[in-house]
Amino acid sequence: MSRLALKSSDGIVLPPSFCAWLSKTNDLTSRFVAAGRIPGLINIAGGLPAPETFPSAELAELAREVIHDYPHECLGYGPTDGLPELRDAIAARFSSDELHLRRENVLITASGTQSLDVIGKTLIEPGGIIAAQFPSYVGAMDAWRPREPHYRDVVFAEGEDDLVASFAGAQFAYTVPNFSNPTGKLVDLPTREAIVDAAERTGVWLVEDDPYGTLLYDGEPLPTLIELSARRSRGEIYDGPVIYMGSFSKELVPGLRIAWIIAAPEVVRALTTAKQGTDLCSSGLTQRIGLAAMQNGLIERMRPGIVELYRERRDALCAAMTEHLAQWFEWEVPVGGMFVWATARDAWIDTDRLVGGGMEAGVLVGPSSVFDPWGKNRHAIRLNFTLNPRDKLAEGVRRLADAVRSMGEQR
Amino acid sequence: MSRLALKSSDGIVLPPSFCAWLSKTNDLTSRFVAAGRIPGLINIAGGLPAPETFPSAELAELAREVIHDYPHECLGYGPTDGLPELRDAIAARFSSDELHLRRENVLITASGTQSLDVIGKTLIEPGGIIAAQFPSYVGAMDAWRPREPHYRDVVFAEGEDDLVASFAGAQFAYTVPNFSNPTGKLVDLPTREAIVDAAERTGVWLVEDDPYGTLLYDGEPLPTLIELSARRSRGEIYDGPVIYMGSFSKELVPGLRIAWIIAAPEVVRALTTAKQGTDLCSSGLTQRIGLAAMQNGLIERMRPGIVELYRERRDALCAAMTEHLAQWFEWEVPVGGMFVWATARDAWIDTDRLVGGGMEAGVLVGPSSVFDPWGKNRHAIRLNFTLNPRDKLAEGVRRLADAVRSMGEQR
Repeated sequence: MSRLALKSSDGIVLPPSFCAWLSKTNDLTSRFVAAGRIPGLINIAGGLPAPETFPSAELAELAREVIHDYPHECLGYGPTDGLPELRDAIAARFSSDELHLRRENVLITASGTQSLDVIGKTLIEPGGIIAAQFPSYVGAMDAWRPREPHYRDVVFAEGEDDLVASFAGAQFAYTVPNFSNPTGKLVDLPTREAIVDAAERTGVWLVEDDPYGTLLYDGEPLPTLIELSARRSRGEIYDGPVIYMGSFSKELVPGLRIAWIIAAPEVVRALTTAKQGTDLCSSGLTQRIGLAAMQNGLIERMRPGIVELYRERRDALCAAMTEHLAQWFEWEVPVGGMFVWATARDAWIDTDRLVGGGMEAGVLVGPSSVFDPWGKNRHAIRLNFTLNPRDKLAEGVRRLADAVRSMGEQR
Repeated sequence: MSRLALKSSDGIVLPPSFCAWLSKTNDLTSRFVAAGRIPGLINIAGGLPAPETFPSAELAELAREVIHDYPHECLGYGPTDGLPELRDAIAARFSSDELHLRRENVLITASGTQSLDVIGKTLIEPGGIIAAQFPSYVGAMDAWRPREPHYRDVVFAEGEDDLVASFAGAQFAYTVPNFSNPTGKLVDLPTREAIVDAAERTGVWLVEDDPYGTLLYDGEPLPTLIELSARRSRGEIYDGPVIYMGSFSKELVPGLRIAWIIAAPEVVRALTTAKQGTDLCSSGLTQRIGLAAMQNGLIERMRPGIVELYRERRDALCAAMTEHLAQWFEWEVPVGGMFVWATARDAWIDTDRLVGGGMEAGVLVGPSSVFDPWGKNRHAIRLNFTLNPRDKLAEGVRRLADAVRSMGEQR
């Protein structure tokens, strides 16, 4: 795959082109960016938090304070694995009677995307296999594309013998058990047990991506995979196969670009080596702001308001869908997260085409084809309910219904 | 290179190990981190700015202000290629009569290291060739190691026919023309012309890494490679082969983690796709702080003080070296940057061993063997003069001289 420079007709050597993987990237982002310029377009495609939840006055004050109190830490280079106090605070927050975490279990990163990038750099050799259930998070596939992995499409469900066969030989398994992006699905407890079992029995690393865990609108939270894994471990410090990912983006604000990975110390050390060549270290300033927002209780104080707002918006979106889309689509109401996944009832509904029709009608939704590496699913859409107020969600769904109707009339 | 899981003796499949490239990383960083815990150790190894130059009071106030004035931009997700106003400001700052830059020429990144990472993801196919002069920046090799490139050792000098042959077939050429890390060398104008010529004639991309450009202590600045390249271009907007890298880390503070790449628009678009899977976007908050520090003149006001401080420290380090090290080492006084590169006069001085002896004597320096991919040079050291005050620099050099002396006595 070496790319040699080419000679032009007059003997001049031409520039080598860019790496091959770049041409395999979906154009979702550029289409979404272009759509952002359409006046009046209602964007229910992305996974954006509601900006009215941002505690800007508190964070402005915290930013000033932390630079004043910790100038060298905020403004200088810091340790590649993160500020020790923030690592300790994350370890303490996620520790329980069964899950024993110390600083050595925690790597601070500059976003969930960076967590995925360093995991890819550490675990995926070219041609290596990732076991995942599809549809799955498009951003994870974006992060891993430069490593050119193969994907094994696995149904994550009880019946652990199948899972053992599916995991064996993979570099790792990837899952978003809490309100999976894009499907919004909560993975149930028996399936969680089976997934952890399969990871333990095969020795395959298990990447648990949990950006939405605190966005729970109905019922009680289920134990995370790393908690279930810790029950099987006897160590003083977690050393199992789960590589857990969390972030400040959905529970505080995304603009800090601070996230974390919790894993066995040997994994954290390897990931730290990968992070060294990725950005050397994360910003001390934004780490300190996030830490201060944990320590002074800001994040805990914000949570009920965020949950209440997003629950209302989920209900508003689903009510509008029931009114306008039920004849063409079916869906489950998600108990958490940011998305509703709607599957077409009829084969004539090509959702790639529908996204284009929706844009003409003034609404943007996510097409199912981008959520697997093969573009195989063209019969579902992902709708986001966190960004827009209720009336805009309802209007967006009405516009989408118009687009479906006009697609139906044209067939 | 696929890594399959291994079966243990009792039939249990064992975890796959980590990617092979991780085991090829030098242990410089972990040795330096360990050294940081030795009480009283004088660190003249790293490339750290002097924290007393950090304008913490001004930045604390700016942080508060920008969150107040631009809450959604600072705290939300932003465009992958960077805040439009910061891209415009960078384009304006680096534009000249000959170099015509627009927003489309600029990508904002989260550090010089991230710039190197996205360049590697965009340009290096596995097995691809990078043409560079060694010794070279260890951090660049760290950033590119996951792409597993080959390096071609090129002498960057006049005599352009040799350079053309050296560049041909490479994915890109890499150079730090201003006060190269680690050698501190300024690449002269005829050589700059020859390098740009060779890039233009071969069509090979030319990565110009310029973190130290404003740290000039004697004489006048030379034109950058991208400026020289622009003189040959007729376009309304720069579209030549140079990929120029800059950063706020050395002229403002490193803790913002904001840097930039200036290149042809097609390159910026490809790099942006790579950044999308790397961290989605940089922090709006730290981009806004950096932009405010450009707009209100803070960076320009800081520059004379930084240059004066570092010039004094360079002179102090070189004076101490003349007093204590001249019998064993030779060096040129650098006209800019952060480092002095000292080459051993005698073959018995093994600088890998000397680094260990120096640590025992209470001083840390950088061994030459980490600055090329083959570890071939074990007869030079890199000394930093920016971090420590003059008396500490002198004491560090005295300790290093003790270490050389005791190495000489043991042979």
